[in-house]
Amino acid sequence: MIVLNDTHDPNLKSWVTSSNITGSDFPIQNLPFGVYEKGKNKERPCGCVAIGDQIVTLSDCLAKGLLTGKAKKAAEAGAGPTLNPLMALGSGYWSDLRRQLSILLRVGGAKTELQELLVPMSGVEMCLPAAIGDYTDFYSSINHATNVGSLFRPDNPLLPNYKHIPIAYHGRSSSIRISGTPSKRPFGQLKAPDAEFPVLDACKRLDYETELGVFIGPGNKLGETIHLEDAADHIFGFCILNDWSARDIQAWEYQPLGPFIAKNFATTISPWIITMEAMAPYRQKMFQRPDGDPKPLDYLTSVVHEETGGLDINLEVAISTPQMQKNRDTPHVIGSPIFCDMYWSVFQMLTHHASGGCDFRPGDFFGSGTISGAKKNQLGSLLEVTLGGKEAIEFPNGETRTFLEDGDEVVMRAWCHKDGAARIGFGECRSVILPASGSKSK
Amino acid sequence: MIVLNDTHDPNLKSWVTSSNITGSDFPIQNLPFGVYEKGKNKERPCGCVAIGDQIVTLSDCLAKGLLTGKAKKAAEAGAGPTLNPLMALGSGYWSDLRRQLSILLRVGGAKTELQELLVPMSGVEMCLPAAIGDYTDFYSSINHATNVGSLFRPDNPLLPNYKHIPIAYHGRSSSIRISGTPSKRPFGQLKAPDAEFPVLDACKRLDYETELGVFIGPGNKLGETIHLEDAADHIFGFCILNDWSARDIQAWEYQPLGPFIAKNFATTISPWIITMEAMAPYRQKMFQRPDGDPKPLDYLTSVVHEETGGLDINLEVAISTPQMQKNRDTPHVIGSPIFCDMYWSVFQMLTHHASGGCDFRPGDFFGSGTISGAKKNQLGSLLEVTLGGKEAIEFPNGETRTFLEDGDEVVMRAWCHKDGAARIGFGECRSVILPASGSKSK
Repeated sequence: MIVLNDTHDPNLKSWVTSSNITGSDFPIQNLPFGVYEKGKNKERPCGCVAIGDQIVTLSDCLAKGLLTGKAKKAAEAGAGPTLNPLMALGSGYWSDLRRQLSILLRVGGAKTELQELLVPMSGVEMCLPAAIGDYTDFYSSINHATNVGSLFRPDNPLLPNYKHIPIAYHGRSSSIRISGTPSKRPFGQLKAPDAEFPVLDACKRLDYETELGVFIGPGNKLGETIHLEDAADHIFGFCILNDWSARDIQAWEYQPLGPFIAKNFATTISPWIITMEAMAPYRQKMFQRPDGDPKPLDYLTSVVHEETGGLDINLEVAISTPQMQKNRDTPHVIGSPIFCDMYWSVFQMLTHHASGGCDFRPGDFFGSGTISGAKKNQLGSLLEVTLGGKEAIEFPNGETRTFLEDGDEVVMRAWCHKDGAARIGFGECRSVILPASGSKSK
Repeated sequence: MIVLNDTHDPNLKSWVTSSNITGSDFPIQNLPFGVYEKGKNKERPCGCVAIGDQIVTLSDCLAKGLLTGKAKKAAEAGAGPTLNPLMALGSGYWSDLRRQLSILLRVGGAKTELQELLVPMSGVEMCLPAAIGDYTDFYSSINHATNVGSLFRPDNPLLPNYKHIPIAYHGRSSSIRISGTPSKRPFGQLKAPDAEFPVLDACKRLDYETELGVFIGPGNKLGETIHLEDAADHIFGFCILNDWSARDIQAWEYQPLGPFIAKNFATTISPWIITMEAMAPYRQKMFQRPDGDPKPLDYLTSVVHEETGGLDINLEVAISTPQMQKNRDTPHVIGSPIFCDMYWSVFQMLTHHASGGCDFRPGDFFGSGTISGAKKNQLGSLLEVTLGGKEAIEFPNGETRTFLEDGDEVVMRAWCHKDGAARIGFGECRSVILPASGSKSK
């Protein structure tokens, strides 16, 4: 079902020694793709692969004549300013490129040819890895849906469609930014429950949402569907996604057509795309629905999917206040969600999304929705942690928060680890909150 | 406030005689932009202007050396396969290009140079005029919102936010297609009110929505807003939009995050973009809110906007059944909505959209939402006309419909006309329904 190959061998070591250190996000078994631009001169962005704390530029591998066949074509497609052309080629090409890169970077590989061309991650700026055509956001954590639903609709937290449909809404692709880009607090219409009229003001209840992002590969034609069994071949890879949310704006605007201004001011993603193939050791049994829950409709279930639909990913979201930044304190971890108890898998999300014939283009993107576990320390948003702002959290330095304040930095991480497989890290997704600008309005 | 110039002179005639005929959609006062590809060989699509029943190719005007200054730069930007580069330039460039094209096409203009290069519309295929980054759909007709609300939420048709917020949701840009492209009936989850479980099946309640589409010009940076007074300069132009809707899928899926599969299977737009400047004679007083309705918040109102926020546009939606097509009957007009009684203007929609800092890129696009008047013959969707499928409409040939059937063609038109100004036509937006494909599921 899930085929592991020599690229997954946990004993494999690279001549890039920083990648062999325990706890490295980017060992040779990972090899995530990204796009960077060098230094201050903003040279043309180019596709690359992460290994340890170094970057391998795809165009360098090509210039050295180190790649052949499909892998060469894949690297040519991926060497430009976006990975969309590589995403369009399909899993056969991705896999061959991964395998040849793995061989080049192993001990005994192409150290002579590549070592001088390695670029330290610390010296570059990463870019959005793809031109994202459409962005969709799902709502696939039943814990999150229940927690949020009980705040927005106390009488009716989980709607009757939830256990049948991977609920989603279309998001805004223009405002997606790469990790490290600050995010400005939005203005928006706010209405206190007891106020007669709304006002235009800066958001008072700014929140993060800890999600998994999914990049689409070749895509499908308009009017065609994607079968659940084929969904994995349509996924290029994964990143971390912070779906910033203005809770007060959302509460007033979201009915009947869903969130809008509350979400479209900024979305932050991590720069490295962890490939579907790198995730192979961490595919696992699907979340087991509690007794009494309906079975998904046929198009959303299969024997193979039940065995392999889950993804064993750990996430972590932390806040660093301005005072903590000044004192160089470690960002304080607020939540440690796990992806494996999501009610809907990424494959079900994609299959449902295309079930009416909606077409995907290479580089289209979707988010899982906030990932929240059943436990208090597994929550993916502040809204849930503070019960809608009613219970402040306290940091070790005594500061407290109900929602995010200006200058706060939110740092998300994700990784996979287990016995018998190499650790696969996602890197981090971070962004600092800038104050709102603009003027209030009656 | 609204400046008319010589390009708007209703007495102006063109040497392209078909444009001078009473009732022509494309007289010399219109000059809408589009993109076409010639004949069967599918040459590179290129930007062009409509005049009467002919097309003027921008690259031809450049090759003949007929344009100068900003107009030349604008034509160079618009001559390629999408109009996005032209949209990016801004209203000064658009206006200069319009003026020089008007002079070239007037009686006494560049007939000698251009006549042999005219391309008959009947011989070409039109393309999407822009690469649409993000697509948003508003909900700005209070009649439509009330009509639909009373079907979906009988107890609560118009939500409390409606009169304060131009309500909108993000749509799917990948599935937007040009007029003439067939639209396939989608599959989706349906649940009868009395059924215990949903089923996956072909949509049974397929509908159109008659809307105005709006193309964005230069756009704004992330975190910046667009003032109401500047909104017109950010709008490149307008087209007709059919926001296909699967009502049965929508009813089951839309809570709490809005419509999704019910909308993302197809959206059809007309090919010609009527420029903001061509619309100048038809800008008028904003819709007057009834006594007792709240005044919009400051960012959504101004003295100038009250005088010029309205657009005097007539629309028409017609159906042609397969039998009517066979007999060459005229499509039967179902509704004749007027844009001037929209509760929110296109300028308010854009200003609100950017109010939280959401960025627009050239070629981004939004729809007004279904345009419905207060009268029975002014409704923009079948859902409203048939009261949710309860009252069938009957065509002159005796056929009836509650919702669309396979083979039905929906034809939308729009135009502006009044004494003292030239008629400005939008052309048409048409698409025929193809049967659903796929298999049912339990």
